[in-house]
Amino acid sequence: MQIMPEDIKKMNKKELGACAARVREFMLKKVAKTGGHLASSLGVVELTLALHKVFDVPEDKIVWDVGHQTYAHKIITGRGDMFDTLRQKGGLSGFPKTEESEYDCFNTGHSSTSIAAAYGMAKAMELLGDAHKAIAVIGDGALTGGLAFEALNNAGHSGGNILVILNDNEMSINENVGAFAKYLNRMRSNRQYRNFKIGIERGLKRIPKIGEKLADMALRVKDTARSLVFPKTFFEQWGFSYFGIVDGHDIGELVSVLRRVKDLHEPVVLHISTVKGKGYEFAEKSPTKFHGISSFDIKSGECVDAAKNGEEVVPGDVFGCALKSLAADDDKIIAITAAMPKGTGLLPFAREYPKRFFDVGIAEGYAVTFASGLAICGFKPVVAIYSSFLQRAYDQIIHDVVLQQLPVIFAIDRAGLVGDDGVTHNGVFDISYMCNLPGMTMFAPSSGEQLSDMLTWAARNVSAPIAIRYPKRLPAISTKFKFGKANVVQKGDCATIVSVGECLSLAYELAEKVSASASAEEKAEMRDKAEIIDLGTILPLDIATIKKSWQKTGKIIVLEDGEVTYGVGGLIRKLLPGAEVISYGVENPLDAEWSIREEIEKKINNEQ
Amino acid sequence: MQIMPEDIKKMNKKELGACAARVREFMLKKVAKTGGHLASSLGVVELTLALHKVFDVPEDKIVWDVGHQTYAHKIITGRGDMFDTLRQKGGLSGFPKTEESEYDCFNTGHSSTSIAAAYGMAKAMELLGDAHKAIAVIGDGALTGGLAFEALNNAGHSGGNILVILNDNEMSINENVGAFAKYLNRMRSNRQYRNFKIGIERGLKRIPKIGEKLADMALRVKDTARSLVFPKTFFEQWGFSYFGIVDGHDIGELVSVLRRVKDLHEPVVLHISTVKGKGYEFAEKSPTKFHGISSFDIKSGECVDAAKNGEEVVPGDVFGCALKSLAADDDKIIAITAAMPKGTGLLPFAREYPKRFFDVGIAEGYAVTFASGLAICGFKPVVAIYSSFLQRAYDQIIHDVVLQQLPVIFAIDRAGLVGDDGVTHNGVFDISYMCNLPGMTMFAPSSGEQLSDMLTWAARNVSAPIAIRYPKRLPAISTKFKFGKANVVQKGDCATIVSVGECLSLAYELAEKVSASASAEEKAEMRDKAEIIDLGTILPLDIATIKKSWQKTGKIIVLEDGEVTYGVGGLIRKLLPGAEVISYGVENPLDAEWSIREEIEKKINNEQ
Repeated sequence: MQIMPEDIKKMNKKELGACAARVREFMLKKVAKTGGHLASSLGVVELTLALHKVFDVPEDKIVWDVGHQTYAHKIITGRGDMFDTLRQKGGLSGFPKTEESEYDCFNTGHSSTSIAAAYGMAKAMELLGDAHKAIAVIGDGALTGGLAFEALNNAGHSGGNILVILNDNEMSINENVGAFAKYLNRMRSNRQYRNFKIGIERGLKRIPKIGEKLADMALRVKDTARSLVFPKTFFEQWGFSYFGIVDGHDIGELVSVLRRVKDLHEPVVLHISTVKGKGYEFAEKSPTKFHGISSFDIKSGECVDAAKNGEEVVPGDVFGCALKSLAADDDKIIAITAAMPKGTGLLPFAREYPKRFFDVGIAEGYAVTFASGLAICGFKPVVAIYSSFLQRAYDQIIHDVVLQQLPVIFAIDRAGLVGDDGVTHNGVFDISYMCNLPGMTMFAPSSGEQLSDMLTWAARNVSAPIAIRYPKRLPAISTKFKFGKANVVQKGDCATIVSVGECLSLAYELAEKVSASASAEEKAEMRDKAEIIDLGTILPLDIATIKKSWQKTGKIIVLEDGEVTYGVGGLIRKLLPGAEVISYGVENPLDAEWSIREEIEKKINNEQ
Repeated sequence: MQIMPEDIKKMNKKELGACAARVREFMLKKVAKTGGHLASSLGVVELTLALHKVFDVPEDKIVWDVGHQTYAHKIITGRGDMFDTLRQKGGLSGFPKTEESEYDCFNTGHSSTSIAAAYGMAKAMELLGDAHKAIAVIGDGALTGGLAFEALNNAGHSGGNILVILNDNEMSINENVGAFAKYLNRMRSNRQYRNFKIGIERGLKRIPKIGEKLADMALRVKDTARSLVFPKTFFEQWGFSYFGIVDGHDIGELVSVLRRVKDLHEPVVLHISTVKGKGYEFAEKSPTKFHGISSFDIKSGECVDAAKNGEEVVPGDVFGCALKSLAADDDKIIAITAAMPKGTGLLPFAREYPKRFFDVGIAEGYAVTFASGLAICGFKPVVAIYSSFLQRAYDQIIHDVVLQQLPVIFAIDRAGLVGDDGVTHNGVFDISYMCNLPGMTMFAPSSGEQLSDMLTWAARNVSAPIAIRYPKRLPAISTKFKFGKANVVQKGDCATIVSVGECLSLAYELAEKVSASASAEEKAEMRDKAEIIDLGTILPLDIATIKKSWQKTGKIIVLEDGEVTYGVGGLIRKLLPGAEVISYGVENPLDAEWSIREEIEKKINNEQ
C-alpha cells in the first residue's frame, strides 16, 4: 500500500472514509504478522487522514506523543511497503523517526513531550515569520505526566500558533487514572456539553462554501453564550480556545473542525473522542491486550504462540510473584507503578492487596516522591518502573530518596537493550546514573531465581535506597545470591570475566574463546581457562573477590548490558587502581544493537 | 527567642497577633545579620502560627514546599536560639531538616515536591489507622512544576486526608509566569468570589462555641448554592474541596478556617493570599531582592557590602553578559530559564531580546523539551539551569536532546559545592550524569574569561548538545581556552595534576605540597615539581595531553568539584588503562563540606 499525503488531499469525504477502511485493513494484516502497537494506531486512523487532508506536512509540524500511534501516519507518508519490517532490526521503527521520513518532525517514545516540543516549534516558526502550525497529538493517558502540564501552563495565554489535539480514549496503557481522567469522563458523559456546538453546526456547514464560515461565526457567538450556561473547561481556564468533543471516527466532522482551527493563530485544544482498537472487534474489547501485541491470528484475536521457550523466564513476572508472596508476611510493603500494572508484573499484587497498590499514571517523578512520603512513615515502597522511564525521576531519586536515605526499593525492569521498541526504550544508563549516588545498593540478577532472592533480601533489609535492575528476559538457570558477595562460577587463571546480570551466558562463551586462544605456553602453565564471576551485587561492590581473581589472572573483562563510559567497569577501575579493566557493553547508545549479545559479539569480533 | 508549639496552643487570637509581630521582628533582626530567605519567611508568619495553633505537629505532618519559608516554623519549634548560625557551616539549616528537629517531617529544597510527599504520608497514616493530617504548604510559584500537578492529579478524588495550603503571593522567585498564574490572578481579583464565603461567616463565628459550627453549616449550604453562581474552581474540578481566598495575614481567620478543615478527612485545598516580605517595608516593595539576601541594614534596606572581593567574578554575570553580546550577531540564539532570570544572569539578555527570552516557570523538564523543539527548527537554545535543578530534566536531556543530537547549549550554574543552601543545592552529580551520554560536549571553565570563550565557541559551533558547568564564583584570573585541548599551565615531572574548572588554585597549592614533599633523590633528579593541567574541555577529553604528562610523571591526581565515583577521574581511567588515577573531589555528597577547597583539603590532610 503506497499512499502519499498529496493523494489524501485530493480525496473527498467519501473517498477518505474508504481510504480509512483500507488503511485499517492493511495495518491489521501487517501487525497480525509482525506484532506492534495495534490498538493505539487503529484508534487514530481517521484523525491521521484528516490531519493530512487539512494541513501541509512537513511544513505544518505534527508531534505524536509517545509515538506508537503513528502506523496510519507512516502508511500514508509512503512507508506502507516497509510494514513487513515493522519493529525489526534495520526495519521500520514503531515510533516517529526524523531520520526515516521528512514527515516525522520530532522523535518520540517517552510520554508527555509533545506539547512542549510543539510549542518550541510554534515559537520557532513565529520568530521565523512562518505561519504554519505546530500540532501536538496527545492521549488522555499522557496528560497524567507533569511535563504535559508544564507545557499547557506555558502555552496557554501565549498567543502561540499551537494546536493540541487531545485524543481522549479513556485509556492509558491500562485504564487511565487520576482526577483529570475523571474530569474528562464527566465532560464526555455530559451530553449537553458534547452536543452544544456540534449540533447547530451540522446544519450550517451543509450549505456549500459559506456554510463553514457561518458555522464558524455561530460557534464564536456561541462561545460567548455558552460561557453563560456552561462553566469554562479546564483548558479555557488555562487560556486555550477549546473545541470539542468531536467524534474522532467521523472523518467529515474532523476535517471540518480542523479547517476551522487551522486559521486560528492562538493556542487551541481540540478534544476528540476515539476508541482504542477501533474497527477490530477484539482490539476494541481488549485494548490493553492489543496495546503492544506479538503476532496474532486475525480471526480469533489469539496470539500466535511462539514455540514456548523453556530456556527463558520473564523477570517482571518473577518480581511480581515474589513481591506478592513477601507482602503476605509484611504489611509494610507497598507497590507503586507508573501506568504499567501489567508490564511490571504487578497485577497479581494489585488484585491481592489493592490498598497497598498504587498506579499513579505516567508520572514517574511523582511515583518516587510519593514513595518517599510513605517510606518516611515506616513503609517499604517498591517503585517498579522501566529503566529508561526512571530517568524522568532522577531528581526525585536524588533529592527525595537518596539525600534522606529512605528505604525505597527500585525495581528497574527493561534494563539493558530492549530490541523492538528501539533506542528511546533502552535502559543503558541506569548503572551510571544510580551508582554515583551515596548509600545506594544495587543488584543485577543473572537468573529469575537470583532476582527473587534479591527482592527478598531487599524487602527484609531495606533501610536505605536499593535498586534491582533486570532485563526483559533472563535465562531459566539457577544462580545463587549472597548479599555483597560476588560468585566465582568458574575457576580459571588466564583472565577474570566479571559478568553483570544477563551477561552470564556470554561470559561462559567468552571464556571458551579465551581458552581457545591461549598460547601453548599458557596451556603448559595450565593458564588456559578464564575465571568467571557472576557479580550479583553491583553496590556495594565485592572488590575483594574481584581483586583476588585479578591478582591471579592480571586481566579483567567486564561484561555489562549498559553504556560503558562508567558503568560497573568504572566502579572496578576506581577501586583497583592500576588494573587494566576492559568493558564490553553498549558502546554507542545512539546506534545500539538489538540485544546485548549482538552488541558484545560485535565488540569481540572487532577486536579479533 | 525560645517558643514551642505548646506555647502557641495556649495563645488567644490577640496573643497570637502579638506573637506574630515578635517572631517577625526577631526574624528580621537575625536575617539582617546572617542573610537568608527573608521575604518568603516573612510572608507566612501568621500561617505558621495558625498551623501550630490548630494542628498537632509532629503527629500532623507539615511538608513545606521548597522549604525556605520555614524560619517562623523554626523559631516556634525551639530553634530561635540557633538563628545566629543560620545557613552557616554546622549551624541552623535554611531548609527543613528531619535530623534537626522532630517538627520537620520531610526535607525539602527543590520545588514542587510537597503535595506528592504529603500524599504519601496521608496514605501511610490511612494504612496505619492514624487520623492525623498530612499538610502541604506550597506557593503559587511551585505550582508551575509538573510534579505538583502529578500529585494533584493523584490526590484529587482520592478521599485521602490531605490538606494543600496554596500560599498565593503572586510570586515565584521573580514574578510568577504561565497560564495558571493568570488564572489565580483572576480568582484573586474577583472580589465576589473572594468574599462570598468569608463575609457571612464573620458574623456567625463571633457567637461563642456554636458559632464555628453554624459557620461550617452555612458554608456547606453555600458550597452547593455557590456552584450555581460561580464556576467550579480548578481545584474542585480535580476533586478537592476548595476553601478561599483567605487573607493569609489575618490570624484569626486562618485559625478559624484551619479548625474547620481539620476534621474534613478528604482532599482539601485552602487558598490563602499573602504578601511576600510582609511586615518589612523594603521586602514588601522588593520581594525578589529580599528572596535570598545577604546581610543588610534594617533601616535602609541596603545590603551591607562585604568588602568587595576583586579576586572573584560571578560566572552567571559573565555568562549573561557574553550571551547578550553573542545574540547581537546571531538571531538564532534563544535563552531559557526555569524561574531564575536573575540568578542565572539572564536579565540583561531578557531586557534586550524579550522575544528570544523564555522564563518557563519552575519547569526544568519542560525547559529542555521546549528547547529541543526550537533546536529542531534551526535555533540555538541556551538552557540556563542550576546543576542540582537540572537533575529534574534528566530524561528530557537524554530522550529529547541527546538521542536526537540536537544543538542545545546547557549553561549549568552552581556546579560544585554551594555552601549556605546545603546538600540539596549542591551540583555534584552533573559530570557523571552528563558524561555518559553519547555525543555530549562538556566544558568547565577555570575563569570568567574561559567561560566567556567557551560560550562563544559553543554558540558558533553547536551542532549537538554542549554543556558548560560553572560554580557560583570563579577567581578573577586569566586562563586560556582552546576547544578539546587541555592546557599545561605548569610544567613538571613528579606528578600530573588534572584540574577541573574552579579547582585550579587548589592545583597550584597541591603542586607546592607535592614539591615540598619530594625526596632528596627526586630533587637531585629535578623531579620536584608537579605538572598542572587546566582541563577546560571535559568532553571530548584531551587524553593525549594527559597521557603525555602521565608517561613522564607516572602519577595522575584529578581535582574536581563533583562526586568522585565516576567524574573526570572515571573518564581518564577508562581511556588510560592501567594508569593510577587518584580523584580528589566530593567523597560523600550526604556530608559534603562547605566548599571544594575544604573538601579537598580534608582529603589531602587525611592522606598525609
